[in-house]
Amino acid sequence: MFDKLHEECGVFGIAASTESSVDSAYETFTGLFSLQHRGQESSGIAVNDSGVISCRKDLGLVMEVFDERTLRAMKGDAAIGHVRYSTTGNSNVENAQPIVVTHHKGNLAIAHNGNLVNAGELRHDIEKIGGIFHSSNDTEIIAYIIVQERLSVNSIEEALSRAMRRIKGAYSLLIMSPRKLIAARDPNGFRPLCAGKLDNHYIFASETCAIDAVGGTFLRDVAPGEIVVVENGRMRSIDSGLHADNKSFCSFEFIYFARPDSILEGIGVEWARQEMGRYLARESSVDADIVIGVPDSGISAAQGYAAETGIPYGVGLIKNRYIGRTFIQPSQGQRERAVRLKLNPLSANIKGRRVIMIDDSIVRGTTSARIVSALREAGAREVHMRISSPPFLHPCYFGTDIPDSEALIAHNHTIDETARIIGADSLAYLSLTSLSDVMNKAGCPICNACFSGRYPIKPPIAAEKHIFDRHLARVL
Amino acid sequence: MFDKLHEECGVFGIAASTESSVDSAYETFTGLFSLQHRGQESSGIAVNDSGVISCRKDLGLVMEVFDERTLRAMKGDAAIGHVRYSTTGNSNVENAQPIVVTHHKGNLAIAHNGNLVNAGELRHDIEKIGGIFHSSNDTEIIAYIIVQERLSVNSIEEALSRAMRRIKGAYSLLIMSPRKLIAARDPNGFRPLCAGKLDNHYIFASETCAIDAVGGTFLRDVAPGEIVVVENGRMRSIDSGLHADNKSFCSFEFIYFARPDSILEGIGVEWARQEMGRYLARESSVDADIVIGVPDSGISAAQGYAAETGIPYGVGLIKNRYIGRTFIQPSQGQRERAVRLKLNPLSANIKGRRVIMIDDSIVRGTTSARIVSALREAGAREVHMRISSPPFLHPCYFGTDIPDSEALIAHNHTIDETARIIGADSLAYLSLTSLSDVMNKAGCPICNACFSGRYPIKPPIAAEKHIFDRHLARVL
Amino acid sequence: MFDKLHEECGVFGIAASTESSVDSAYETFTGLFSLQHRGQESSGIAVNDSGVISCRKDLGLVMEVFDERTLRAMKGDAAIGHVRYSTTGNSNVENAQPIVVTHHKGNLAIAHNGNLVNAGELRHDIEKIGGIFHSSNDTEIIAYIIVQERLSVNSIEEALSRAMRRIKGAYSLLIMSPRKLIAARDPNGFRPLCAGKLDNHYIFASETCAIDAVGGTFLRDVAPGEIVVVENGRMRSIDSGLHADNKSFCSFEFIYFARPDSILEGIGVEWARQEMGRYLARESSVDADIVIGVPDSGISAAQGYAAETGIPYGVGLIKNRYIGRTFIQPSQGQRERAVRLKLNPLSANIKGRRVIMIDDSIVRGTTSARIVSALREAGAREVHMRISSPPFLHPCYFGTDIPDSEALIAHNHTIDETARIIGADSLAYLSLTSLSDVMNKAGCPICNACFSGRYPIKPPIAAEKHIFDRHLARVL
Amino acid sequence: MFDKLHEECGVFGIAASTESSVDSAYETFTGLFSLQHRGQESSGIAVNDSGVISCRKDLGLVMEVFDERTLRAMKGDAAIGHVRYSTTGNSNVENAQPIVVTHHKGNLAIAHNGNLVNAGELRHDIEKIGGIFHSSNDTEIIAYIIVQERLSVNSIEEALSRAMRRIKGAYSLLIMSPRKLIAARDPNGFRPLCAGKLDNHYIFASETCAIDAVGGTFLRDVAPGEIVVVENGRMRSIDSGLHADNKSFCSFEFIYFARPDSILEGIGVEWARQEMGRYLARESSVDADIVIGVPDSGISAAQGYAAETGIPYGVGLIKNRYIGRTFIQPSQGQRERAVRLKLNPLSANIKGRRVIMIDDSIVRGTTSARIVSALREAGAREVHMRISSPPFLHPCYFGTDIPDSEALIAHNHTIDETARIIGADSLAYLSLTSLSDVMNKAGCPICNACFSGRYPIKPPIAAEKHIFDRHLARVL
Repeated sequence: MFDKLHEECGVFGIAASTESSVDSAYETFTGLFSLQHRGQESSGIAVNDSGVISCRKDLGLVMEVFDERTLRAMKGDAAIGHVRYSTTGNSNVENAQPIVVTHHKGNLAIAHNGNLVNAGELRHDIEKIGGIFHSSNDTEIIAYIIVQERLSVNSIEEALSRAMRRIKGAYSLLIMSPRKLIAARDPNGFRPLCAGKLDNHYIFASETCAIDAVGGTFLRDVAPGEIVVVENGRMRSIDSGLHADNKSFCSFEFIYFARPDSILEGIGVEWARQEMGRYLARESSVDADIVIGVPDSGISAAQGYAAETGIPYGVGLIKNRYIGRTFIQPSQGQRERAVRLKLNPLSANIKGRRVIMIDDSIVRGTTSARIVSALREAGAREVHMRISSPPFLHPCYFGTDIPDSEALIAHNHTIDETARIIGADSLAYLSLTSLSDVMNKAGCPICNACFSGRYPIKPPIAAEKHIFDRHLARVL
Repeated sequence: MFDKLHEECGVFGIAASTESSVDSAYETFTGLFSLQHRGQESSGIAVNDSGVISCRKDLGLVMEVFDERTLRAMKGDAAIGHVRYSTTGNSNVENAQPIVVTHHKGNLAIAHNGNLVNAGELRHDIEKIGGIFHSSNDTEIIAYIIVQERLSVNSIEEALSRAMRRIKGAYSLLIMSPRKLIAARDPNGFRPLCAGKLDNHYIFASETCAIDAVGGTFLRDVAPGEIVVVENGRMRSIDSGLHADNKSFCSFEFIYFARPDSILEGIGVEWARQEMGRYLARESSVDADIVIGVPDSGISAAQGYAAETGIPYGVGLIKNRYIGRTFIQPSQGQRERAVRLKLNPLSANIKGRRVIMIDDSIVRGTTSARIVSALREAGAREVHMRISSPPFLHPCYFGTDIPDSEALIAHNHTIDETARIIGADSLAYLSLTSLSDVMNKAGCPICNACFSGRYPIKPPIAAEKHIFDRHLARVL
Repeated sequence: MFDKLHEECGVFGIAASTESSVDSAYETFTGLFSLQHRGQESSGIAVNDSGVISCRKDLGLVMEVFDERTLRAMKGDAAIGHVRYSTTGNSNVENAQPIVVTHHKGNLAIAHNGNLVNAGELRHDIEKIGGIFHSSNDTEIIAYIIVQERLSVNSIEEALSRAMRRIKGAYSLLIMSPRKLIAARDPNGFRPLCAGKLDNHYIFASETCAIDAVGGTFLRDVAPGEIVVVENGRMRSIDSGLHADNKSFCSFEFIYFARPDSILEGIGVEWARQEMGRYLARESSVDADIVIGVPDSGISAAQGYAAETGIPYGVGLIKNRYIGRTFIQPSQGQRERAVRLKLNPLSANIKGRRVIMIDDSIVRGTTSARIVSALREAGAREVHMRISSPPFLHPCYFGTDIPDSEALIAHNHTIDETARIIGADSLAYLSLTSLSDVMNKAGCPICNACFSGRYPIKPPIAAEKHIFDRHLARVL
Repeated sequence: MFDKLHEECGVFGIAASTESSVDSAYETFTGLFSLQHRGQESSGIAVNDSGVISCRKDLGLVMEVFDERTLRAMKGDAAIGHVRYSTTGNSNVENAQPIVVTHHKGNLAIAHNGNLVNAGELRHDIEKIGGIFHSSNDTEIIAYIIVQERLSVNSIEEALSRAMRRIKGAYSLLIMSPRKLIAARDPNGFRPLCAGKLDNHYIFASETCAIDAVGGTFLRDVAPGEIVVVENGRMRSIDSGLHADNKSFCSFEFIYFARPDSILEGIGVEWARQEMGRYLARESSVDADIVIGVPDSGISAAQGYAAETGIPYGVGLIKNRYIGRTFIQPSQGQRERAVRLKLNPLSANIKGRRVIMIDDSIVRGTTSARIVSALREAGAREVHMRISSPPFLHPCYFGTDIPDSEALIAHNHTIDETARIIGADSLAYLSLTSLSDVMNKAGCPICNACFSGRYPIKPPIAAEKHIFDRHLARVL
C-alpha cells in the first residue's frame, strides 16, 4: 500500500562463552526486535541446547511470535534468529526462517539475508539427483549445498567454504551446528553483517543497532568472503579465498533500509543520509520557505538539505505511530484518503509556504502523488520534490524487492512527466555521481545496479527467472 | 492424561470428475471432521488448482484450523487432507501433514497414516547422498523415495510402485500430483483405506464414516499392495506386485480406534465390538447385577457382554462432552479428582450393585484405578473389570503409540496383581484366541503383535530405534 | 441448527470454611465445567478476596474463557460462576454473568438461572425513578430490586427476602457479598438448585453432577422459597415466607436438560428418562426389530422402551464428538447433508430392520426429518418415531427458549401430519398423564405449561412481551 | 515502564446528513485510529441504526478490536467512538467506552474524556436512592445524572444542560440518542473538543487531526459550557448558561498529549511546542555542540530551542517504531538495558559532543537517568537536560494520571538534586511564567494546576479520594 521497497531480512546470532552463560533466546529476541525494520512478515529463533536444536517461527512481528512463556522454554547456549520482510498476501509460514534440518553428520540451523542469482540452476541440480524442496526460499538451497559438501569434508566450516564456491549472489549467513556458530558473507559483501561481544559472548547481527540493543560492543564487520567461526567460546576467521574485484555494498542500505543509528562499513547511516541531502541541495536547489522530509526515512536527508541551503528545516508531515500490519481495506471512495491515515500535513508549517519535500526514493509514484496533494490541500503554495537517491531504473537481484522495470515510474517516464504525474512543481533526484561521491568519501564501494544497470554479478536470465517464479508461485 | 492409545492419523482425498466440479476443500474438511477421532493434534488440507498445489495446516482440530474464509480461499479440483494424533507437549507444526514438495518433475502433496519399520535405514541412505530433513515424519522419507524413483521412470504411479519396494511397514498413502490423485496401501494392509464416490467424483478415506459424512457411496477397500490412480475423472488400479503372505490388519482398529459406524475390511466395527463382548462374557463370566461400559469405546462390548450373559446392561458412567484439548492442569491435591471431570458414576445404577465394568484396554492402569475407586464411592458393592482385548505386552511399530514394555501394566504384573493395583474385585481380558476367532469369523486376518509379540514384519532393532529417537528428539 | 431447546443457565458457588482454605476459583471452574451442558454461550466467575470482588467473563466455553494463568490470578475465599446458553448470532458479552455491582452499602455479585414474568413491569418501575440498564438480562433487574431493598434493611439476606416479594417467575439465584454467599430459589421451585459440602466448605450448584465433579457431598436441595446464607463458614436457612400452592419443577429438566447422573428433587435423571421410555412403550408399542435412541438425550428413554417391550436396544446413530461452536455454514447444496456431520446411522444395526427411534422432543421437526431420511438411506425398512415427552404446544416463560407457537410443529400439525412431514412410518408422543405419573411416582409436582398451557404463574401479556422485546432488541 | 503521563481518552462522533449516507462506523474507526495516541488500552464504537444502538468495545488498539468484518456488520446513520489510555495491569473491559444504556425514555450511548471532581459525591447520591454501578467510570455517573434529569424534561439536550449543573470537573462528552448526536464541554473547557464536517455530515473529535484523517473540514471548537446538537442533519448550539470565570485548557495537551498536527483552541500544537523550546532557550541557555530531542514529544521543542540559540539541531536518539503493548518483562539483569530497546543514541551525532537534550517533562526520573547514561556511553562529553514544561508538583484531577506528589521527583528533590539523580551536567525546566506567556500569546488561558497547585475548581478532598479509590479498587 505504501509504495516502499522491502528489505529481505535481518539476522542475529549469539554463542555463549564457555566461562559464563547467557539467555541466548532472550538476547536474540532483543536483537531481532531492534532489526524489526528489516522485516515484518515473519520471525523465528532457533536455540541450541547441548546439540539439540529446536526452533520456533511464525508469521508476525517478533513481539507477536514470542512471549515470555515461549522464550523461557527456549533454553540454549547459542541461538540464531531471523526477521523476514512483509509483502501483502503471498506470505506463508513455510518461508519463515531459521530453517532447521538434520543431515548425515548431524543437524543445522540457517538464517539468511540476501538473494542468490544462481538459485534456479542450483535448485535444478539438486532436484536432478532427487532433492525435494519444501519452500521457495534460497535458504533451503544453501542448506542442501552445505550438506552435500559436508559429506566429503571434516567440518561444517570447510563445507561452507566449498559451498560458497557454488552459490552466487548476495548472502549474509548465520549457521548454527551442535557445537559452532558460524557467520559468512558473500565475496561482494552486498548485505551487511557485523560481529560484536556481549560480556565474553560473541554476537553477530545485520546491523550494529542490534549490538547496541543487547548492550554489546561492536567488534568489526564480517568481511566480504569471510567465514567467522565461534567454537568453545573462541572466535576465529577463515578466508574463503573468494574475493570479488570490488566490494559492492548495497547503497540502498544507506539510503533507506538501515536504522539511522547503525554504522555499516564504518559509516554512520545518519551521516550518509544527511550528506546525500547536502549533495542533493547542491545539485538541485530551488527557492523555498521550508524543507520538510517524508517520515521516517526522508527526515535525515531533509535536515542535510536544509543545512546546506540555509532554508529552514521543519516538520511538514506527522506520521501515525500505530499503523499495524492488518490494515483495513478502505472502500473505493475511501481509498484516496488512505494515505491520510498514515501521514497528515502539519498545516501550521505548510500553509502559504513554498515547500521542498525530501523523500528517499520513488517506486511507483502513487504515494508521492497523494502526499503532494495533501500538502496542497493544507495550503502549500509550491511543492518541490527532491529525492535523495537516483531514479530506479533496473530490478534488483541481490535481496531487495525492486520490481520489474514496467512498474517503475522512472523507467516509463521522464523526470518532467513524473513531476506532472505526482503533481509537484518540480522534481529532482540525486545524481549517481553524487551518490558515489558520498560513499567513496567514506571509502565504501557500492552496488548501484538498480540505478545504473551495472550488475556486479551477472543477474539470472530474465526469462528463466520469470518461468521459475511462475513455477514456484503459490507452490506452498 | 487419560491412559489411552493414540492412532497416528486419518486421511481423506477427493478428485473431481471431468464432467462436473466439486468444492474439494469443503468436502475434504467434512471428511476430516468425521475422522477427527483418529487425530486431534494437527489438521491440514492441500488443494490442487490446475497443477498449483497450495496447503494450509496447523496444530488444532479441523474446526480450529479451518474456517469459512480459509476454506473459500482454497480453490481446486482435487484435495487431500490429514489429521494427526494428539500427544501432550511434544507436538510441533513441522510434523503436520500433508507435506507439499517440489521436485525435478513437478510438485507433490502426500498424506500418510502408518509407520515405517525401516525409516531409520532409509533416512540414513538419503542423508548419505546429501538429503536433508525438516521433520521427524516418515512422510518426508516417503516423499524422498518416490521423488528418487520418479527421476528414472515416466509416471508418479510407477515411481510409487518402485518406492513401495523400498519402504517397509504400515502405510496408507494419499498422493496428489498436478494431474493425479493416488491412493496406496502397504502389502500387509495394516491401516485401513477405502474408496468411494461422491456423485461422479472419486474419494478416498481412512474409514467409511468419512464417505458417509460427505454423502458419498462406498465402493471398496483399497487392497493391500494396491495402487489406485484417479486421472481425468477415471479410476484405475495398479498391482504393485507386492503381496504379504497374510493380510495383517491392525486389530486395534476394531477394538478401539475406528468409529463404530465404520465398516473396515467388510466388517462393521460396532458388530465386532459387540462380538468381542460376547466372547469375553463366555470366557470370564461372573455373577453381577449390572454390566456397564467405560464411554465411549467400552459401550459396544458392554452391550454384547450383557446380551450374552443376560445380566442387564446399564449406563454406569456419564462422560462430559465438553472436554477440550487445553485441559487445565490440576494441582497435586486436585489430581486425584481429575478423572471425575471427565467421567462421573451414575449412582442410581451403581449404588448397592455388583458391577461388571467393560473397557477396551488397559495401558498403564492409572485411569482404571480412578474409575474403580469412583464407582466404589458411588456405592458399588463389587466391581469386576473386563477388558475386550488381550493384555498389551509388546510395543507397536505399525502406527500406534503403544509405549515401551516397561510402561505397560500387563508387562510388569500378573492379572491378579493388576486387579489389586486398580482395586477391582476381579479382572479378566479377552483371550487372543477369542479375538482371532471374532476376526476370522469375519474373514479378516489381523496383526496382533502388541498382544502376541508375533510381528508380521521384522521390527526395527530396539537399540537402533532408541538411538534414532534420541537423535531426533526435539530436533525441530 | 440442531432443533433443540436451550436451557438458560447453570450456576455454581462456593464459600470457604473459616477453618481451612480452598481454591475457590478452581473449584468453581470445575463445577461450571460439569454444568457446561446448561449453557455454551458465555462463562464467568466472580471471586471474593477479603471483600474485594473481581470478575472475569466472556463469550465461550468454560475451557475457552479460563486458563491456568487466569484462574491462578483469581484469589478468593468465595466464588460464584455462571454458564449461559448458546444461541446463534445474537449473543453478546454484556449479557454474560455473574454481574458485579457496587451500591450504597457495598458490592455484590449475582448469578441467575431462570426468567422473570414481571421483568417488563419491574424494569419500567426502575426506569421511572432514573434507573439505567446495561443489558437485557433479568439479573440486572434483580440486582436493582435487592439494592433498593437493601437501603432500608440491615442485611443483604433481608433485602433479598423483600426483593423476592417483588420479583415473579423462575429464579435460582446465587449472590455473593463481601462476607456472605447466598442461595435462593423462587417459591415455585421452577429451576433446580442444590447445596453440598466440599470438606468443610459449602457449595451450591444447579445440579448434583457439579457437586460430584468437585468431589463434594450432596446435602439437600434448596427448597422453593428458601434463602440459604453461608457466613463465617456456617450455613443457615431463612424462610422467605413465600410459598406457592404447588411446587412446579420444570419437567424438561428431567426430559432433556439435566445430565443423566444428576439427582434433582430426589429423583435420578437417568431413572426418570428410562421410566418415560417404559411408559411410552406401554402407550404406543409397535412391532419392530430394534429400538434406538437419538444421542445423547434419547438414549436413556430408548433403553427403558426396549426393556419394557423386549425389543432389543441397539446403537443406531453415531454422534461426532468434535462438534464445535464455530460450525462452518454449509452452502445451499451441502445443507441437506449437514445433519450427517453430527449424526451418522450405524448401518449394521439398521439395514433391513424395522426401527423404533426414540427422541426426547420435537421442536420444529427439521432435524427429525433428516435423521429419518438418513436411517432410510442406511436401509431401515420401517422407522417408527417415539417421543419421550408430550407435544410442545405453548411457549415457556420460565427459563427455556421454547419459541412462539407458530414455530412449533405440534402446534400447527396433527400427529399424523407431523409423521408425514418427518417421513416416519408412525409417530407417538408420551401422554401428559404418563409424564405426570412418572413425576408423581417420585413425588415431584411439575410445571408442564409448555405441553398443557396451564401456567403456574400468570405469564406476561403477549403483546407487552412483544413490544418489550422489540424495545430491547439489539439494545446493546 | 516509560515514565510518561497518560491522557485519559479520545472521542469521535459522526451524524449523517439527511440528504446522503455515510459509513459511520468506518469513519469513526478512522477517526479513532488518528486519536490512538490519546489512549491505547481499549477501543469502542457504538452505532445508531434507526434508533437501535449497538456497541462493540474491547481491550486493545483500534486496529486490534475492529476488523473489516466487524465494521461491516455495524450499520448506522450515526456513531460515536472512544479510545482509552493504557495502564499496566489494572485495565479491564468493564471500563471500556462508549457505554450504552436503556432508560425510561429510550436508550443512550455516551463517550467521555475527562474526570469529575465530585464523582464520589454524585455516586454516593445515586447509590443512596438505589442506583447500582457496573464500573468505576465517571461515564456511568454522567449517564445516571442525565437520565435522572431526563425524567422531568422533554429532551435529552435539556436533560444534559441540567446535568451539567450537577457534574463538576473536566468533561468533553459525546452523547448519541436514537435521533440525536450531542457534544458538550465543561464550563472550564479543560479537555479539547472540536466540530467539523465531512461532506454534509457533522463530526466531532477530541483533536483536529481526526477531522483531517477522515478528510473532513474543521468548523470550530465546541466552546466551554456549550452543548451542540445534531438532529435531522442540522447542527444547533445551546448555551448551558454555565461559564467559568476563565477558560482553563489543559496546558499538557500542548506540552505532550496532542498530536503536533492538531490545532487546539486555535493554536497549532507544533507551533506551541517550538515556542516553548524558544522560551526555554532564552531562560536557560548553555554552551553546547548539539541540541537533541527525546522522541517523539521532545523533538519540536528541541527544534525551537536550537533555532533560538543557533546551536545546531540533530537527531540524538533513535526510537524503535515496533514497540508493542505486550512488552516482555526483562529479567533483573536485563532491566537496565530495557530503555535501549526503545531508544538508542545516534553515536555519530553524540560522540565527543556537548549535548543539550530536550524532553517535555519528568515524572519519576527513571527513564531520564537511563537516557543520560546511554548518551554518555555513546561518548557525549556533557549532557544538559532541558525540560519544556515546569516541574510537576501537584496531582491532576482533570483527566490525566499525574500521580501522588510522593512519586514526583520534582516534589521530593531540588533541581540540583534531580540533575544529580539523573546524572545530567545541568538541568533546567521552563518557567511557569514562560509557559503562560506562550499560551497567552495565543490567547488561550490554561490550567496549570499540576505545576502551580492553583486548581481552577476545588479538587476532591484527598482523604475522601483515597478512601473512594480503595473502595473501588479492583471492584470489577
